[in-house]
Amino acid sequence: MATQARFPRFALLGVGYIGGAAALAGRQVGLVDRVVGFDPEPAAAAAGMRKGVLDEVAASPEEAARDASLVLLAAPVQALSDLLVRLAPVLSPRTTVIDVGSVKVPLVAQAETAVPAGQFVGCHPMAGAEFSGVDAADGAIFAGRVCFVCPPGNVRPEAVRAAQDFWTAIGCHTVTIEPRVHDRLMAAQSHLPHVAAFALAAALESELPFLAETTRVASPTTSLRDTTRIAASGPAVWRDILLANATHVLPLIQQLESRVAGIRRAVAAGDGTELERILASGQACRQWLVKE
Amino acid sequence: MATQARFPRFALLGVGYIGGAAALAGRQVGLVDRVVGFDPEPAAAAAGMRKGVLDEVAASPEEAARDASLVLLAAPVQALSDLLVRLAPVLSPRTTVIDVGSVKVPLVAQAETAVPAGQFVGCHPMAGAEFSGVDAADGAIFAGRVCFVCPPGNVRPEAVRAAQDFWTAIGCHTVTIEPRVHDRLMAAQSHLPHVAAFALAAALESELPFLAETTRVASPTTSLRDTTRIAASGPAVWRDILLANATHVLPLIQQLESRVAGIRRAVAAGDGTELERILASGQACRQWLVKE
Repeated sequence: MATQARFPRFALLGVGYIGGAAALAGRQVGLVDRVVGFDPEPAAAAAGMRKGVLDEVAASPEEAARDASLVLLAAPVQALSDLLVRLAPVLSPRTTVIDVGSVKVPLVAQAETAVPAGQFVGCHPMAGAEFSGVDAADGAIFAGRVCFVCPPGNVRPEAVRAAQDFWTAIGCHTVTIEPRVHDRLMAAQSHLPHVAAFALAAALESELPFLAETTRVASPTTSLRDTTRIAASGPAVWRDILLANATHVLPLIQQLESRVAGIRRAVAAGDGTELERILASGQACRQWLVKE
Repeated sequence: MATQARFPRFALLGVGYIGGAAALAGRQVGLVDRVVGFDPEPAAAAAGMRKGVLDEVAASPEEAARDASLVLLAAPVQALSDLLVRLAPVLSPRTTVIDVGSVKVPLVAQAETAVPAGQFVGCHPMAGAEFSGVDAADGAIFAGRVCFVCPPGNVRPEAVRAAQDFWTAIGCHTVTIEPRVHDRLMAAQSHLPHVAAFALAAALESELPFLAETTRVASPTTSLRDTTRIAASGPAVWRDILLANATHVLPLIQQLESRVAGIRRAVAAGDGTELERILASGQACRQWLVKE
């Protein structure tokens, strides 16, 4: 088509699963012409070239972002603030910067001072998975998913429009939300479930030799598969997310610990009444949380 | 067909999801002619009649079991021992008694004295689900599933053959296993995952009012759905299972508690190194547990 792409030059900073998927999706719908990538890990950038996600590897984040129509920050959460500070001086007024981080309060707050011209819009597409690496990237994962949008106080309206255009064009429904509300929601719906899954899988460490002996019959149950699936996620990614959202997730981790302790005490004491009370509260919460 | 059914008279003691499914499956493959049921809850027995699982409701477990070819104990785990003791005097030598309990050590040990003629065979088909009630019963759930078989020391070989014939005919692969090995395996693969799921769902209790406000955008994530799915299971059923298998599950609950506490301490202290270490151990265990 002769139509000019909405974002002719797309800079991808952090060449991994979710950023790679967004770049692929943008290219597939004709929204993006040229993808320039940077990753501190040269192997990740090389994989992005092989996979056809990138057209070009830049020598630095600044080089990738210069003259970009849209910059997508897709690095681990703790690296995002530094990236914003580095990029701010080279951003053209026509560039929009978005991200895909799972925690929004710290980054959006930082953007209000670090990006005074208001080109940054915090974003979080609900399309994560336990996969990692650009090799697994798939442009189809955004279809029908919510993408949360958190504009900083000083944002340029054109930047919000650009961010919404991008996510909408690749299949998301955008939902504008306060960063604080987003982070509290994610603590309950995503961050605490990850804590539970990692802790559960790790708790079975001492049983691995026994389970190895019973491999013939011990094909994993659906219960075990489903409850530990997200423990296959990247430990460094989740370290960053939990630390960045400590305010909201820490009280919930304490609640989880206290419920596990309650079950442990009731089982040890043979206290069926108390045990059933805790299990029934879990069942009632589950039925409320997931109405099927 | 003119062929005599292998188990013309089938007694179902406990008319619920899994027992109802086994009776339906037996009938569907022509293994069973007539199903006589008993449940202490008259409504459950009535539902079994409506659903076409039962042909007849007995006034007591003894009445249902008298002259049965196969007796299936499908009551909650803590009720099984009492049932066995009550039934033993009325069992004909040609009757085989099986069960579907999730814990095998206590019941199989009890059978050696309670059923001196050796008609009992401990069984556990791996076809459970978070559903309960005979209305949800489905005869197709056994296809391709493992059914663990735990014969007591005094078992009659004909009883083991009958049990294996039943499960095999409705689609299971039978696997003979020591009760002790079975219970340890289930503690790791099923009972601890249930503890984690119930505790996780219960831990979100304090956030339900907040989540109620955000309903418009807070449709549950896949992470939350998958990690809490089995918390929809029956609290009384799981109370019984955890208490009956306390020997094996209690040390694992302690491990789970200690991993959650470790994550809580690391997040509170901002200790990224320790946090990543625990998460990485969870990831490694998950990859070992579920090889995909």
